[in-house]
Amino acid sequence: MAVIRKQRGHFLEDFVPGDVYRHKGGKTVTEGLFALFTDFSMTTNPLSKNARYAQAYGFKGLVVPPGLVMLIVFSQSVEDVSENARANLEYIDMRFGVPVYLGDTLEAETRVLGVKGSSSNPMLGVVHVQTTGRNQAGQVVLTFQRKVQVWKRDRDAALRDGEAAPERIETTLGLPPYDPGRRYGELAHLTNTDSYLEDFTPGDVIEHSRGRVVTTDHIMLTGILDNTSQVHCNQWMVSRDPERFVGGQLIVFGGIPFTLCLGISSADVGDNSLGDIRYATGRHTAPIFAGDTVFASTEIRGVSEFPGRPDLGVLSATLRGHKFVERGDEVERVEIFHLERELAVKRRSSYTT
Amino acid sequence: MAVIRKQRGHFLEDFVPGDVYRHKGGKTVTEGLFALFTDFSMTTNPLSKNARYAQAYGFKGLVVPPGLVMLIVFSQSVEDVSENARANLEYIDMRFGVPVYLGDTLEAETRVLGVKGSSSNPMLGVVHVQTTGRNQAGQVVLTFQRKVQVWKRDRDAALRDGEAAPERIETTLGLPPYDPGRRYGELAHLTNTDSYLEDFTPGDVIEHSRGRVVTTDHIMLTGILDNTSQVHCNQWMVSRDPERFVGGQLIVFGGIPFTLCLGISSADVGDNSLGDIRYATGRHTAPIFAGDTVFASTEIRGVSEFPGRPDLGVLSATLRGHKFVERGDEVERVEIFHLERELAVKRRSSYTT
Amino acid sequence: MAVIRKQRGHFLEDFVPGDVYRHKGGKTVTEGLFALFTDFSMTTNPLSKNARYAQAYGFKGLVVPPGLVMLIVFSQSVEDVSENARANLEYIDMRFGVPVYLGDTLEAETRVLGVKGSSSNPMLGVVHVQTTGRNQAGQVVLTFQRKVQVWKRDRDAALRDGEAAPERIETTLGLPPYDPGRRYGELAHLTNTDSYLEDFTPGDVIEHSRGRVVTTDHIMLTGILDNTSQVHCNQWMVSRDPERFVGGQLIVFGGIPFTLCLGISSADVGDNSLGDIRYATGRHTAPIFAGDTVFASTEIRGVSEFPGRPDLGVLSATLRGHKFVERGDEVERVEIFHLERELAVKRRSSYTT
Repeated sequence: MAVIRKQRGHFLEDFVPGDVYRHKGGKTVTEGLFALFTDFSMTTNPLSKNARYAQAYGFKGLVVPPGLVMLIVFSQSVEDVSENARANLEYIDMRFGVPVYLGDTLEAETRVLGVKGSSSNPMLGVVHVQTTGRNQAGQVVLTFQRKVQVWKRDRDAALRDGEAAPERIETTLGLPPYDPGRRYGELAHLTNTDSYLEDFTPGDVIEHSRGRVVTTDHIMLTGILDNTSQVHCNQWMVSRDPERFVGGQLIVFGGIPFTLCLGISSADVGDNSLGDIRYATGRHTAPIFAGDTVFASTEIRGVSEFPGRPDLGVLSATLRGHKFVERGDEVERVEIFHLERELAVKRRSSYTT
Repeated sequence: MAVIRKQRGHFLEDFVPGDVYRHKGGKTVTEGLFALFTDFSMTTNPLSKNARYAQAYGFKGLVVPPGLVMLIVFSQSVEDVSENARANLEYIDMRFGVPVYLGDTLEAETRVLGVKGSSSNPMLGVVHVQTTGRNQAGQVVLTFQRKVQVWKRDRDAALRDGEAAPERIETTLGLPPYDPGRRYGELAHLTNTDSYLEDFTPGDVIEHSRGRVVTTDHIMLTGILDNTSQVHCNQWMVSRDPERFVGGQLIVFGGIPFTLCLGISSADVGDNSLGDIRYATGRHTAPIFAGDTVFASTEIRGVSEFPGRPDLGVLSATLRGHKFVERGDEVERVEIFHLERELAVKRRSSYTT
Repeated sequence: MAVIRKQRGHFLEDFVPGDVYRHKGGKTVTEGLFALFTDFSMTTNPLSKNARYAQAYGFKGLVVPPGLVMLIVFSQSVEDVSENARANLEYIDMRFGVPVYLGDTLEAETRVLGVKGSSSNPMLGVVHVQTTGRNQAGQVVLTFQRKVQVWKRDRDAALRDGEAAPERIETTLGLPPYDPGRRYGELAHLTNTDSYLEDFTPGDVIEHSRGRVVTTDHIMLTGILDNTSQVHCNQWMVSRDPERFVGGQLIVFGGIPFTLCLGISSADVGDNSLGDIRYATGRHTAPIFAGDTVFASTEIRGVSEFPGRPDLGVLSATLRGHKFVERGDEVERVEIFHLERELAVKRRSSYTT
């Protein structure tokens, strides 16, 4: 008889540049998962709320919002890539593909692009990976790179330091064609009147007026995503070792503020978008705990042509999340999230008549 | 470069009698939204639990319960009507129309019926509106009036005091015809035996025996309804200004106790109903906070004929919600909710054989 | 005018051996219910996560996991059997039938098998029942016996002590046939590589490495199951009478740790299973409260042939749940759940090529 305790997930010394992990599970987008996250996130884009609107625009039905596509694909990679991570350092070159609909099944795989030991801490290092999610037809829905700080299992194990080239993943945002026969103007009352492409001026900063507190619901939400990381849900483990685990508190999974910030910005920036195109880079800059209220702002960086689509333009913006922390009599605004974001935004001239 | 903070929602001086707001968003009833609210609410009517039963009765499938129809339509009106409200004063003449099914998309519009400044507080006034929700086929699912106490943005702004006539909204509760060939009696074990029309005596008061605590889940539930009011979810704002915001606590959205009271009463009053017909008037008479346990009682006011439907009758009742509060050694029963309600209730003689 | 307070559920003196209760309500498995529980439970079996996988295996679609089938059928029996119970003593001979799919409607009935008064407490006794759940086609999905300690309403009421024979319920786990043309090997990366039948050695104990804290979400989850027991959700009642109600705390419904333990064990034991066959016996051995972190272990008891299915085998195992409790400087491991379990597990030789 043996007592077995299986360690799930890879440690730093297990990663080999060029290796590919085909992740377990996969996930079908049920209406339950969709409703919980789409609505939780405060998204106001009718593509994800109103099937009549989405279909009138040429989509098959309600469109899974970009934040949820990201959460589903990302979470599938957690066990293999970051179950034994100390911190998620950066999202890089996250690009969206075909729209995701209710009933689609998403599966994901990850290629190891780099491994590098820490010069200061022999138990740590950085892994650089490329993760791609596809639907049941094999079409890319999302691809991104990320860098993660991962623990070693064994201090003395040799590392496979090095780099491998990323796979070239062709993907562009899938959009129905513009069709003047659709009478978009008859649906224009369903979105804000001041969030068309023509409304944005580079340099402007929009302080989104709404905030949202994070409750212990984050634990259930994270579990529902199949995110297996224990720092989000194992209170006993965290309480027993407060020095290792930020004072004994469960850390909120970064995907929660990620999707909340997208949602909070939605009424001002996103509800006349047809989709997020690309996140060049993203970072969680401070942790969030139950009880924190999340706020967001958007800095408009640029407005440009969308090739082949005169009805649309590309809005480049920096989305920042923040919370407020009381330090004695002072209130500090702490940035918690940073995302360089490009959206496909409708031109008023094409969609309101 | 400008820093922009958009104020969403109308203030008292923005309302003009006769104006109509076509609300943004719209909402498709996913199975996720349906399950969360129907089941959360403790509804026991099998029309909303058991598709076999609902279809045997001639409905297309599971029927969205009246409380959820109300929550969906009401919440769409929040940004335009009550995002800047101090209090929701009264629901008036709320009438239900065709049944709402899974997959239906509900959109809503609101007509301003009256604006009246406060004589005692120059920053406040009352707005009287009429809100109507329709499905994707344009059929009315719900129409109601409400009165809301709304803040002014600018103390010195002129008000458009006055009144406008309500739109005449023809709507009657949509019900499948009675068909003796359906063998209703074979399904009679699925509902209580003592909640048929014949069981109610005007004057009786039923103290519903079950109670339900409200947890911080109310925040997620309210968000899922797209209710944008910050007093339900912005803990930071509320904590910073406890004098303005009832001691720094998030107030539970009135729709939560509304639907909970309907659900708590359901086993005694509603599970042999085919639908709620009309709420003549309704009020939230005290706030609810996380940690409060909600109870309810029903006073039977009358039983009458349902025109054209000898298998049914109209039950008129007053639904009251309450909570208990400890004041030293005393326990006070505090009424939190009051609803004048008419239901279409089955006659035992027509449905149990 | 009368004030009426209906007592729901049966008391000890109401139970008559041989009586059958056809339970109220019934429940259609929406995608909302499915997603919330399947994902909450941490199940890793792709049959319940990935429709592509489930269909490739010959199932009609996503398969409702055994824990949720149990919760739905069990909860329907609560009002009639255990709303007035002091404790649920034992699950006996729980056997699964045809697979349950999204959209299925489950209804349940319970036969009273035995009634026995307590020799030490005149207000208590044990009721022994047999509950069976069926889908809309009348096929058995689950049948089980359980013993419950139930309160008397009236100390002096006579009991119908005695026994009745259980109904013979023919049911076997419904599984699609094995078909080598399905190319199972192409899906093998979606499950763990070390949880095939060949991987289990009788006597081994697997300490599952993940844990999960239970939050106040348990209240909403229990309500969503239509479980009407007040000890899980009526905080006021429980706070007012701490001596009767374990110190004034809401007890977590046993179904929550039941399904969590199944889920926590899933990655090590269940993700290459095609279904749970039978639970010979099960017990909740200590209560769970919000804030407790649930852990689990599995003791392998045996591996045997699955008659007629050379591609499968039967894994017999004891699933145990536990939590840790601090007693001064000591940490005590408290067993909370015990389940004798048989699963239909794939042989690696049949499913990986």
